[in-house]
Amino acid sequence: MKIPAEAKKVFQGVIFAVWQWQQKMFDGSLETFELLSRRGTVDIIAVVGNKIIILQQEQPTKPMYPSLPGGVIADGEPHLMAAKRELLEETGYKSDDFELLAAYEKVRSKVYHPEYIYFAKDCQKIAEQSLDAGEKIKVTFVNFDEFLQLGRNEKFLISPNFRALLYEALLDKEKRRELKLKLFP
Amino acid sequence: MKIPAEAKKVFQGVIFAVWQWQQKMFDGSLETFELLSRRGTVDIIAVVGNKIIILQQEQPTKPMYPSLPGGVIADGEPHLMAAKRELLEETGYKSDDFELLAAYEKVRSKVYHPEYIYFAKDCQKIAEQSLDAGEKIKVTFVNFDEFLQLGRNEKFLISPNFRALLYEALLDKEKRRELKLKLFP
Repeated sequence: MKIPAEAKKVFQGVIFAVWQWQQKMFDGSLETFELLSRRGTVDIIAVVGNKIIILQQEQPTKPMYPSLPGGVIADGEPHLMAAKRELLEETGYKSDDFELLAAYEKVRSKVYHPEYIYFAKDCQKIAEQSLDAGEKIKVTFVNFDEFLQLGRNEKFLISPNFRALLYEALLDKEKRRELKLKLFP
Repeated sequence: MKIPAEAKKVFQGVIFAVWQWQQKMFDGSLETFELLSRRGTVDIIAVVGNKIIILQQEQPTKPMYPSLPGGVIADGEPHLMAAKRELLEETGYKSDDFELLAAYEKVRSKVYHPEYIYFAKDCQKIAEQSLDAGEKIKVTFVNFDEFLQLGRNEKFLISPNFRALLYEALLDKEKRRELKLKLFP
């Protein structure tokens, strides 16, 4: 489902907005239904030679955790642009070859949080990191097998949908081969 | 992390609440940080003989999907009570032997959504279903292997944390044996 056309925004915050509408039940009665939307995010699987970039991040409220480069899509920003911007800001790397690997755009469990996973081929370092006051980021590198195993680490901060994709690649040889071939053709 | 003590509730809805506070950044500057909380939920792995109950649910905004019995914890209700109540309402089954399998209580990706997975041993049917106007529920049964495979079905509506637990049981023989032994001693 998407956000229903009749839904009204009852709250708008920095990241989150809340929507409500009157929903007809199976017996014809009405109930207030509620749904959350949050700003869309992008994550980038950035390939450098035969490795993938993994960030070791620290934030003011969180101890060190691994993540992909990525972040929040700005107002009106196309998600591809956001992916290119975040990769450059967080790592100093650039790629001329971005491809969308997965898009998650459905309301799930009352939450609308569009997520886009890109992969960026043949990345080259062209600048230094340019970090926000709320970011401390170390760039590290893993190989394909280490990347799949990282999906099993609960501290690895990724979309639950994408985590399932990594688990599937671990369970299913054919899916693993396909994913590997995409990242390292 | 938990919800910071200095956070202020800036919105309270039916299910969701939004919290904000001024967070000190690494350079000493302040930024408005935001966090979502949603009502806690319970899910129950209900064992009947050598099978596990799976619901086929339909809701006014959603086509049929599989889920565990479960639902939202009421105000002030202990989660064990909620688990017993939801199992009885949604299935008509009762157990005298509930055990907490997993509790997820940390803020993850700016969301505080406490989730409790119970398993209920040796369930007996003692009543008919007692459903809300917004529920159509069919009770079905799967064996242990079918249950693990269901974790791979993206339509299966469960906690992402619990989905990872099921994937781990598929990948790791020892974890699979442990989980099976817990459910079917």
